[in-house]
Amino acid sequence: MIELNNPERSQWDKLTQRPSLPSEDLENKVKDILETVRQRGDAALIEYALQFDHVTLEKLQVTNEEIHLAIDSIEYTLKNAIKLAKENIHAFHNSQKEEEKIIKTRPGVSCWRKSIAIEKVGIYIPGGTAPLFSTVLMLGIPAKIAGCKEIIICTPPNSQGQVHPAILYTANLLGIEKIYKVGGAQAIAAMSFGTETIPSVSKLFGPGNQYVTKAKKLALNHGLAIDMPAGPSEVLVIADGTSNSDFIAADLLSQAEHGTDSQVILLSTNDDITRKTLMAIKSQTINLPRRSIVEKALESSYAITFDDINSCIDFSNLYAPEHLIIASDNADDYVDKIINAGSVFLGNYSCESAGDYASGTNHTLPTSGYAKQYSGTSLDSFIKKITFQKISKTGLENIGSAIEVMAEAEGLMAHKNAVSIRLKS
Amino acid sequence: MIELNNPERSQWDKLTQRPSLPSEDLENKVKDILETVRQRGDAALIEYALQFDHVTLEKLQVTNEEIHLAIDSIEYTLKNAIKLAKENIHAFHNSQKEEEKIIKTRPGVSCWRKSIAIEKVGIYIPGGTAPLFSTVLMLGIPAKIAGCKEIIICTPPNSQGQVHPAILYTANLLGIEKIYKVGGAQAIAAMSFGTETIPSVSKLFGPGNQYVTKAKKLALNHGLAIDMPAGPSEVLVIADGTSNSDFIAADLLSQAEHGTDSQVILLSTNDDITRKTLMAIKSQTINLPRRSIVEKALESSYAITFDDINSCIDFSNLYAPEHLIIASDNADDYVDKIINAGSVFLGNYSCESAGDYASGTNHTLPTSGYAKQYSGTSLDSFIKKITFQKISKTGLENIGSAIEVMAEAEGLMAHKNAVSIRLKS
Repeated sequence: MIELNNPERSQWDKLTQRPSLPSEDLENKVKDILETVRQRGDAALIEYALQFDHVTLEKLQVTNEEIHLAIDSIEYTLKNAIKLAKENIHAFHNSQKEEEKIIKTRPGVSCWRKSIAIEKVGIYIPGGTAPLFSTVLMLGIPAKIAGCKEIIICTPPNSQGQVHPAILYTANLLGIEKIYKVGGAQAIAAMSFGTETIPSVSKLFGPGNQYVTKAKKLALNHGLAIDMPAGPSEVLVIADGTSNSDFIAADLLSQAEHGTDSQVILLSTNDDITRKTLMAIKSQTINLPRRSIVEKALESSYAITFDDINSCIDFSNLYAPEHLIIASDNADDYVDKIINAGSVFLGNYSCESAGDYASGTNHTLPTSGYAKQYSGTSLDSFIKKITFQKISKTGLENIGSAIEVMAEAEGLMAHKNAVSIRLKS
Repeated sequence: MIELNNPERSQWDKLTQRPSLPSEDLENKVKDILETVRQRGDAALIEYALQFDHVTLEKLQVTNEEIHLAIDSIEYTLKNAIKLAKENIHAFHNSQKEEEKIIKTRPGVSCWRKSIAIEKVGIYIPGGTAPLFSTVLMLGIPAKIAGCKEIIICTPPNSQGQVHPAILYTANLLGIEKIYKVGGAQAIAAMSFGTETIPSVSKLFGPGNQYVTKAKKLALNHGLAIDMPAGPSEVLVIADGTSNSDFIAADLLSQAEHGTDSQVILLSTNDDITRKTLMAIKSQTINLPRRSIVEKALESSYAITFDDINSCIDFSNLYAPEHLIIASDNADDYVDKIINAGSVFLGNYSCESAGDYASGTNHTLPTSGYAKQYSGTSLDSFIKKITFQKISKTGLENIGSAIEVMAEAEGLMAHKNAVSIRLKS
């Protein structure tokens, strides 16, 4: 980690910039994949599975038999852990339902909003080293609570043509039936345009590699919506004299193991805690299976000591971290000062892992400073709110002349007429 | 209008597609403007004002003197109309505030969401023929309720270097002080990157021509967020035997006068109403100042007669109109069947003009079928929701082993350690 001491505010803009990523020019490759899937559908998906996943697929959709084999293969303890996480995530996201409130802005003028599920949503679950069944929970649970009619999952098969059983078990537990063995940009293409087997959707969710991310971005040009812009995962920890350096080290490492492009930041008002944390990071890293990923991620990470806690908070608000851990017994005192963050963990026992898996909050959060203007995934992400209004004749009499005057001032006489013709009737 | 009778469902996909627009290749032009403003700041803005608005600007920011002159020049009746609209829009958007709810998902595990304003927002108000002060209300009011710290407006000057007084009056009424005389793609560039005079923002709002729309889309590549994808305005009216054909004609025309690319759709279960509406459109059009725009818009618009109301509703849900008017005394009966629309107007007296100006609902709404997955602008558009969690030692003991099991199953051992080290302590 790069160590800094009380950097000048003039340097903060530079320090809060994320490490620049090698920007491989994928756009043409991904556009080609989108167009090929759009034109050739399932046939293209089967060819890409051979090319990228090295497998010849007979069927794109996971069969009931495969799902039942997966359920049987999952150990009891993992099943119970997933069920506990499901209950907590369900409780928190279910509390996000909003009541319809009818507002009478004038006598005879009633306005309200109604939350309605997005009908068709697609969830991408990456394959690769980590089978992210936790992301199935984080996206599948709010989709189900919202009442989305069509919820589909695309995830790449392994070289035996199989999907990881924990993904199938979790999807089944949530009642998601349509799971397709398609990965990468071609999965995004399939969910965007639809194929013979895979239905098209209105909104795309889920993490992925740079091909998936680029494909989601290009899908915006084809009438789709996406959950949020994606970047490498990150955590910022604020520490003071009440922090536990071993806990902080473990939290920083849990973020660093996500990928070599992850960034972790320690802000501390206490030299001793900083020093001990850096030592703990060294000793804890030795035993980690993803040690090489961690070490690479730490190279572009910072440990910054500030004289006062307010500088830590100001820096954090400028950085706008995806995850913010306030590792202090006094965390409650700082809550009202946090204005930019994805998800905040208060106190020495609120570790990021808890929110990643099982406390109830969502783990799909804005990265790269997007916490300044985006919320993390929630029930809101799976609904839209339609406004309704009902105006009686009296109601229109109460607001009609204002509308006429304003429409005329904007030079829109047909807008005015729509009121006048009613008031005269 | 194109008249159709009970079109087959197989044709609906084609009928609900929006008219394709001439896709001029603006991308390179707009990219050039963005880059020029990014590099040369105010100087570039002043040059573009000369080039596009035909005016030599001394200052980019509207002065206090200009604002006071504008306030004095607005007639009493218009001021009162704007104030009435402001009150209604404020009442409706203020009701969208959400209470913080702390959810205990397990003993010792508390999770909640907190709504926090996006700190810096930019509002674009088009110039041109219609001075859209109503849009200042629709975007400025929720921005103020949210508590955005920096709210700026960019709007093009006329050839005398002035901004329309109704825009200045309305901004002043809301307490928005920073108004800049910049239009087009260069305004979006200025708000995205900042210049010597104009501060950069995190989220861009407001309608505009194709240059503005393209610039907003490109701003997404520079870390900005935007309100929603933009397309031509549209209305769909569902009519039955209880409808008033003169009212419907006026509503269709009020939408058609927005622009030649607007689309208006009439779905009716009653031949007589359809016929009378088409006649009324003809007679009402004659006296409209924007008649040529209206007539062009009607060329790509439909009047469709269906045998039953359910077909009308199904078609409407597939079309996903920005504005949906259910011009029927039985409108209440259909509310629960509406799943895709931006804003819905119920009954024969709820004209779209009301929602455009003064009933209280927002008029910045999803077009082009985006109502399937996007909400209209609301208080939500100006805030983000940050999740917080606080877990006690007991709380972590209640969920810790589930986290350990899940993290291990995903192969993320550092995630597991962050819990284990705490449970062992």
